[in-house]
Amino acid sequence: MYQLNEIDTLPPESADKETSKVAIKALLQELDELQNLLYASRKHALLVVLQGMDASGKDGLIRDVFGNLNPQGVRVQPFKAPTEEELAHDFLWRIHRHVPERGMIQVFNRSHYEDVLVTRVHGMIDDATAGKRFAAINDFERLLQEHSQTVILKFYLHVSAEEQSKRLKERIQDPRKMWKYNANDEKEASLRTQYMRMYEEVFANCAQPSWHIVPADKNWYKEYYVARAVVEALRALDMKYPLIKQS
Amino acid sequence: MYQLNEIDTLPPESADKETSKVAIKALLQELDELQNLLYASRKHALLVVLQGMDASGKDGLIRDVFGNLNPQGVRVQPFKAPTEEELAHDFLWRIHRHVPERGMIQVFNRSHYEDVLVTRVHGMIDDATAGKRFAAINDFERLLQEHSQTVILKFYLHVSAEEQSKRLKERIQDPRKMWKYNANDEKEASLRTQYMRMYEEVFANCAQPSWHIVPADKNWYKEYYVARAVVEALRALDMKYPLIKQS
Repeated sequence: MYQLNEIDTLPPESADKETSKVAIKALLQELDELQNLLYASRKHALLVVLQGMDASGKDGLIRDVFGNLNPQGVRVQPFKAPTEEELAHDFLWRIHRHVPERGMIQVFNRSHYEDVLVTRVHGMIDDATAGKRFAAINDFERLLQEHSQTVILKFYLHVSAEEQSKRLKERIQDPRKMWKYNANDEKEASLRTQYMRMYEEVFANCAQPSWHIVPADKNWYKEYYVARAVVEALRALDMKYPLIKQS
Repeated sequence: MYQLNEIDTLPPESADKETSKVAIKALLQELDELQNLLYASRKHALLVVLQGMDASGKDGLIRDVFGNLNPQGVRVQPFKAPTEEELAHDFLWRIHRHVPERGMIQVFNRSHYEDVLVTRVHGMIDDATAGKRFAAINDFERLLQEHSQTVILKFYLHVSAEEQSKRLKERIQDPRKMWKYNANDEKEASLRTQYMRMYEEVFANCAQPSWHIVPADKNWYKEYYVARAVVEALRALDMKYPLIKQS
């Protein structure tokens, strides 16, 4: 079982900002090539699931790691509070519509995991329902992996309470960021202990594939970590450009 | 009435490659800022419609002009031959699903205009049906403009027969591009005269807003032209960052 309060939110001591920045550049260049190959060969799909507390840096990560790729091969889907129509279906209905087809990279900014996180912290579902949802999520992720050759990468951006609080305050002061501010954010941040517990249960119960817990207090390390993980996953697919189609 | 064979596919003499490249850099930087503002203010949407013959450079344009923006605020939708389910609906049904919500930029790689282009060249619909479709397209585009504050920009990438033929040949030779080759492309290219006539009718009949006919033999000019048009359209919206939400 993960103990989030024992896991660092700062980069490991061996990591160095300048070296990482150089490495990121090379990784993003390789990612660009790999994405082109993924798109051309259309044998696999990549689903990136991003989770983290408010201001943990999900938006910035999307921009910095996925923002230089061909936009025709990448989609980003944010998931907010479900609509009435969505709530009238099973909780995976709205998610399933947005899974990537072969050839595509799909990034989920929040995801089906909110249905076993925010809902539990606020007592909207009980433990038995949560247990059933874990099982449903595992079935769903297996479906994607086995039936559409989808590689799933799950990242939890781990920031300290102090860093989060600092970032939320910045939102009120920067005119370019005010629109991101939500009066509710501070209330949610105050529920940190409960959220951490629910995240720990997610990591333990939905672990195929297992989660990347990304030390995210420093943006440069977070970016480096995720870019490396994505590149390694795509590299492992051993893809090739298709030959000319005979029609 | 437009006469496409009288419109240049090469840049105007006043345009210079080096100057344009410098200008593109500045335009893309401004576009990045404007897109952030569009996303934050959520008052307008932008729909970019890209049309052009095979190998006219639509994919490259998408990559070079829209590839540096925050992927969370940009979506690209390619439209290919319709599926059986799509054909069982009106021709705008599949299109309507992909129009941008306020705050978003949506790029259509081909579009509803194929339903009055490829279909006419191949005799799948008669002139009377085409006329009704023009009217339906105008109603549809007015709906988007009036009811969701969507700015529509329509670009036709105009390449010469020689340039197109050169690019199609390159696809067969470059292992990284072979996958784009389609044995059908040459047959379609041979129907150029018919396509040009149908395009001319589109420009005359669906002109609110009117079309940008982009000289597209040179990628640097095509990019410059489109980047400038997009920036000018967004600039004209006079958007502001919202203040803090009170909730």
